[in-house]
Amino acid sequence: MLAEEIKQYSIEQLEELAGHLREQLVSAVRENGGHLASNLGTVELTLALHKVFDFPQDKLIFDVGHQSYTHKILSGRDISHIRRKGGPSGFADPEESVFDSFISGHSGNSIAAGIGMCNARDTFGEQYKVISVIGDASMGNGLALEAVFSSEEKPKNFIVVLNDNGMAIDKNNSALARALARTSAKKNYRDFNSFMRRTFKETNAFGRQLRKMKYSIKGWLNKNEFFERCGFKYIGPVDGHSLPELIYMLENIKQLDVPILLHAVTVKGKGFEAAEEDPARFHGVGQNFVGSNNSFAVALGRVLCARAQTDPTLVAVTAAMTEGAGLADFASQFPNRFYDVGICEEYAVTMAAGMARGGLSPVVCLYSTFLQRAYDQIVHDVCLQNLPVIFCIDRAGFVGADGKTHQGLFDLSALRAVPNLKIFAPKDCSEFVDMFDYARSLACPVAIRYPNGYAANLGSRMRINHTMLWETLTEGDGVIVLASGARAVGRALDARRVSGLTNVKVINCRTVKPLDTGVLDRYAGHKIITFEEGYAAGGFGSAVAEYYAQKGEAVQLLLLGAPDAFVAHANAQEQADDALLTSRELAAHIRALAQSE
Amino acid sequence: MLAEEIKQYSIEQLEELAGHLREQLVSAVRENGGHLASNLGTVELTLALHKVFDFPQDKLIFDVGHQSYTHKILSGRDISHIRRKGGPSGFADPEESVFDSFISGHSGNSIAAGIGMCNARDTFGEQYKVISVIGDASMGNGLALEAVFSSEEKPKNFIVVLNDNGMAIDKNNSALARALARTSAKKNYRDFNSFMRRTFKETNAFGRQLRKMKYSIKGWLNKNEFFERCGFKYIGPVDGHSLPELIYMLENIKQLDVPILLHAVTVKGKGFEAAEEDPARFHGVGQNFVGSNNSFAVALGRVLCARAQTDPTLVAVTAAMTEGAGLADFASQFPNRFYDVGICEEYAVTMAAGMARGGLSPVVCLYSTFLQRAYDQIVHDVCLQNLPVIFCIDRAGFVGADGKTHQGLFDLSALRAVPNLKIFAPKDCSEFVDMFDYARSLACPVAIRYPNGYAANLGSRMRINHTMLWETLTEGDGVIVLASGARAVGRALDARRVSGLTNVKVINCRTVKPLDTGVLDRYAGHKIITFEEGYAAGGFGSAVAEYYAQKGEAVQLLLLGAPDAFVAHANAQEQADDALLTSRELAAHIRALAQSE
Repeated sequence: MLAEEIKQYSIEQLEELAGHLREQLVSAVRENGGHLASNLGTVELTLALHKVFDFPQDKLIFDVGHQSYTHKILSGRDISHIRRKGGPSGFADPEESVFDSFISGHSGNSIAAGIGMCNARDTFGEQYKVISVIGDASMGNGLALEAVFSSEEKPKNFIVVLNDNGMAIDKNNSALARALARTSAKKNYRDFNSFMRRTFKETNAFGRQLRKMKYSIKGWLNKNEFFERCGFKYIGPVDGHSLPELIYMLENIKQLDVPILLHAVTVKGKGFEAAEEDPARFHGVGQNFVGSNNSFAVALGRVLCARAQTDPTLVAVTAAMTEGAGLADFASQFPNRFYDVGICEEYAVTMAAGMARGGLSPVVCLYSTFLQRAYDQIVHDVCLQNLPVIFCIDRAGFVGADGKTHQGLFDLSALRAVPNLKIFAPKDCSEFVDMFDYARSLACPVAIRYPNGYAANLGSRMRINHTMLWETLTEGDGVIVLASGARAVGRALDARRVSGLTNVKVINCRTVKPLDTGVLDRYAGHKIITFEEGYAAGGFGSAVAEYYAQKGEAVQLLLLGAPDAFVAHANAQEQADDALLTSRELAAHIRALAQSE
Repeated sequence: MLAEEIKQYSIEQLEELAGHLREQLVSAVRENGGHLASNLGTVELTLALHKVFDFPQDKLIFDVGHQSYTHKILSGRDISHIRRKGGPSGFADPEESVFDSFISGHSGNSIAAGIGMCNARDTFGEQYKVISVIGDASMGNGLALEAVFSSEEKPKNFIVVLNDNGMAIDKNNSALARALARTSAKKNYRDFNSFMRRTFKETNAFGRQLRKMKYSIKGWLNKNEFFERCGFKYIGPVDGHSLPELIYMLENIKQLDVPILLHAVTVKGKGFEAAEEDPARFHGVGQNFVGSNNSFAVALGRVLCARAQTDPTLVAVTAAMTEGAGLADFASQFPNRFYDVGICEEYAVTMAAGMARGGLSPVVCLYSTFLQRAYDQIVHDVCLQNLPVIFCIDRAGFVGADGKTHQGLFDLSALRAVPNLKIFAPKDCSEFVDMFDYARSLACPVAIRYPNGYAANLGSRMRINHTMLWETLTEGDGVIVLASGARAVGRALDARRVSGLTNVKVINCRTVKPLDTGVLDRYAGHKIITFEEGYAAGGFGSAVAEYYAQKGEAVQLLLLGAPDAFVAHANAQEQADDALLTSRELAAHIRALAQSE
């Protein structure tokens, strides 16, 4: 395994290897899509960590984990099929390898997890090092900040590597980022010197070695009060692309037992010109570096820009999802009404609640998987006050290659219980636009959920126009299919065709809350199938079952939703296949139900 | 209204009023229970704010809001029935008064909400001040820290008053607290002077006034880098019990338009000796200052201490709920295995996940309403990795006097969808202990939910002993009542008696996930009622309805749970009455169902 071999490598050999690794990274992302810029930025850092520490005895925790591809290669994983079904995941995952010490995907967990692992290690009297690698954008997340601030005493033999590339997914304008940037390389040189002398008094050749180093050491050590007050010995900034610097620092840090924060400055996209120049574009890309085609995100961007022309109260809020959520045009056309707060989902939601309280009409745009990070803020700050905040929930349903940490399968279950909140799920982009306008006309919180990827226009029989009524797409007196959400409705229409039964009534259940109880009452005596892409537990079908059960009405109802399991990376269609949520499966259910008594 | 009258009051009159207010606070809390120490600590601060600013034109946002009683009195509310049904709430609430600008109850939202309100104000070109009052413990919450760090540019005319009483609900050992405490009163006096001269150059009499002041100004102004780097002009620390100091500072601050952080040092329990000496005891108290009698919390404390004797891997984690969750004895007996992380629910959960990953057996003890603040961490860090973390969820169901911000009604809906997680609900404390041991024997995450208050022992017919089976409490071939949770089971047994029907079968559905499908299959043809204290949407009854619907089985099922609305303060029994979840209501449903076809 490379991880073992490189222990013997010279700096020159490592630098040569770095070049090969970059080629592999570019090739793998070109083939499979993925996170390119962040991985190119951490090649040397990862090499240096593997050169100096002994994984998996020492524990390496990546925050977010989208920068862990080099680590995957070194620890024996073939990334040529990364993010494909059966290939390695795009994030670190202990189920995949013992070299991955903790799950990653959502930002900000690495320091808390690392402290927990240190606590366990110290309880058992074990000796390994715990190393958390966290980006500067993740460091601004509430979970990471809680971990940094919660206790002044940090565990020993705990090393946080702050991978500072000076940008979040989009631009990074946080106070934290500025504080880091202001770190002066000069003023604390004396502090550095005395700290190093004190610390390395055993290795008394240190002073001489120091002068021999070919690179400037002045920039390295810095008494950064921010971290020092929180119990870390701050060391840095260090050049995150200089293998000699990194290895030298890590070798020395390895001998310390105090909690360390090593501040490494890296360049996103390093070594691949296009990515260095436009790292945001190469943050997460599809195959052949093409951006994804997400119909709903495009539709959101368009309607936001259009409505903002005439409605000065309309503002958009996101948490580092500007590009992905379709907000780039709005951000450039209406910079004063656009709020990208960085990876701070909680702050995004509560700040939006404050804006709504003050009379604005905020649209909060988050992926389903990240929305769940602000669940309490949705409940407590928005819905309890019945504030007119619109949540545009992208990536709802199976998300494809990002896999199990990123699935958008929880939102309906968690949100359905929240009073005052209305929940919509459009069948296509045209309906989404109608819904968006309808939501703006309501004086209450509204969540609109939709999937990623291409969404066909399914045609309109009944526009959503100041009603909560469902739309009957095909008439018939046979099995009733209650489908909710774009993919489910599309598949239901397909399933009807596949089933060969022309009397199947497909209904577009575009409001999950409230339900169209008129429809439910009308068809209570019929054979009904509910169909959705979300966890069955607590989802749309569950709402239908509840409705009848709250009335005490016995109905013949078949509920189809995602089974009770986490769903690994694959493409979204494969994920639907595995969950038995395809049009073919639905057609089989329709036929079976039609033939039943 | 007092708020208007005090504008004309002299300092002496205000000081006299402060004494009367304290009497009212003590009397109201003695009568109704509530938060005493925090309210006694903010009398002068609240008086000074009302003296200087013009509410509700200016906007006042309390963080948590448990310190808002004086504000309630000044703004015309009679607190003699505070926290009682129909009386004022124990927290700030815009539905109650226009003087409350934002909902409060959960910690850390005031800065985010304040920034949002400022953004709205500035969009509309309005002129009011926005003032957020936040305690030092809340300042360490992730949401507050995100708001502080997210953007370096804070809005103008925004004032954060940091109410620093140097303690969270229990002791406060956070890095943030220490950083605040270290603030030196002396070293930045020059900074202060030049800032004040620069700032108040219009009022050039300032320098002379300064020397006339009878109190030392040196301690006031301080260049606190922590906040300055985050875009606030830091002013303080100021004596939060000195009306002259407070009013003088606020008068001057009012003339500034820069974002200000005013650091006020207060004493919890101020003016009431017993509370000053033991503020933790007087943080939240019942009527006559008696602590609450929460049977499950007591049982948890006992079983934790007992099992910790023989199991060195057992550790307990909470987020500022040491007393309330029943952990005080464990904390003193096993200080090295007890982690109170302050008001950092997210950190608590992810840190516990790290400890579990490292081989420990963490028990995370949180109230239901605060658990929802760590929903994503439960999903992503614990359950996705299938780590053996036990969640002891206290205050599940109606919580009584704390009211709508604190209800424990969401947990089942949100948690049921999470794969790998098992969810239990004991009928009494004896069963809770069995469950706790059973949970420890499982290698997966487990959530155990139970209500506050007294819980009678309901007797055991079938101990939970390495099975997930439900317990049949009364035999019969009539209506089947599937009751989940201590209160529901107790009421179901009562309802059976009240109904006069001896053939009612009451089943203790002690595992919500997984369900006992053997029981459900056996009684599919019967008349079934599900009964629970939690939102019907996505809750236990919903799980039963889903189970049958996923099998496509038509059943006669009546689902009884909390209706889709937030539930205001009252006692827990009144809340159950209003939700139609009493034994009498259930008995009526049983009789009606028994007589139906």
